[in-house]
Amino acid sequence: MKLRINRASPFARKARIVAREAGISNRIEEVETTVSPVVANEALAQDNPLIKIPALVTDTGETLYDSRVICEYLDTLHSGLRLFPEAGPQRFAALRRQALTDGMLDAAVLCRYELAVRPEATRWPDWIAGQKRKIFGGLAALETEVSSWADEFNVGQIGAACVCGYLDFRFADWHWRSGHPHLAAWNERITRRPSVADTTPPA
Amino acid sequence: MKLRINRASPFARKARIVAREAGISNRIEEVETTVSPVVANEALAQDNPLIKIPALVTDTGETLYDSRVICEYLDTLHSGLRLFPEAGPQRFAALRRQALTDGMLDAAVLCRYELAVRPEATRWPDWIAGQKRKIFGGLAALETEVSSWADEFNVGQIGAACVCGYLDFRFADWHWRSGHPHLAAWNERITRRPSVADTTPPA
Repeated sequence: MKLRINRASPFARKARIVAREAGISNRIEEVETTVSPVVANEALAQDNPLIKIPALVTDTGETLYDSRVICEYLDTLHSGLRLFPEAGPQRFAALRRQALTDGMLDAAVLCRYELAVRPEATRWPDWIAGQKRKIFGGLAALETEVSSWADEFNVGQIGAACVCGYLDFRFADWHWRSGHPHLAAWNERITRRPSVADTTPPA
Repeated sequence: MKLRINRASPFARKARIVAREAGISNRIEEVETTVSPVVANEALAQDNPLIKIPALVTDTGETLYDSRVICEYLDTLHSGLRLFPEAGPQRFAALRRQALTDGMLDAAVLCRYELAVRPEATRWPDWIAGQKRKIFGGLAALETEVSSWADEFNVGQIGAACVCGYLDFRFADWHWRSGHPHLAAWNERITRRPSVADTTPPA
């Protein structure tokens, strides 16, 4: 399989962590792919009309996206513990947490585009504030939830690890740990997990 | 159950269509909820830290989001034909198509915010062009795919109906039907389906 990724992308990281947790990363060729919201990568557009990563080309030549679909697909290719619980309240708790962390990442990526890609004269502080509010609302929710996680590490926690890593990577000056000591302690522990350590964004 | 919606929201519409297709809309109270990317709705923030709709409060008092999670949950509450195929290639084809149409809707909502919410002096034409490219890339993909759909109407087609409806609602001047005759013909047929007709955005 071919997985289009970028080492800076938190959504690609979700898929890379799942591949490692599932023990199938040796079946996947990770292809570094450059993306921009304003300059289309034409090769990527062939695989994914949304011109986003991650995008997975399976062994039968089909392309899957986005990160949620890829992660769920990769989770069917191994016989270990399910990263997507199969049914019932546990499944929907994990899916809801994945949606929370995906939403936080969407907001963070929009902040990144606003602050690093958009011409300075066209930036809008209210937009940043609105997106940041979503991220910090999410951090508050995770801070409450994390005490019940114990050793659970499914797609919900994988999302949380990618949020913490992305905030460290792009928004260190937001000091997300402040006010979220339990989440910070969990993240400290989880960054030592091989699948997480192996997919840390570049320095 | 309580479903926070807005009749203008294409993501809320997905959940409303699923509820109707599943025959359980009588169990759901739809609560009109105003959202803005820059002015937080504090009542909504209590239910969903991302301050987005749809958000579902279940009969046991848990809150689920986003639209994908709500739709999959509602699909477990009936015994009719599954709107999320249960496993295998059919499931991933439907999930991939849902991701495509969700991505198109994300791009369209970002265009809407750029053109109708962001102060005029801070608009960035390259951003609109980049998002529009994703939408039209998606339309081209749907135009190719639609010929194989026959009477299939799962979460993938539900997403496509919401895309067509949202483009008509907000971006009629983009004339999406031009160049996509098969998708336009399919949409013409599907807008007469009760679940779709009953959830048309306001005039």
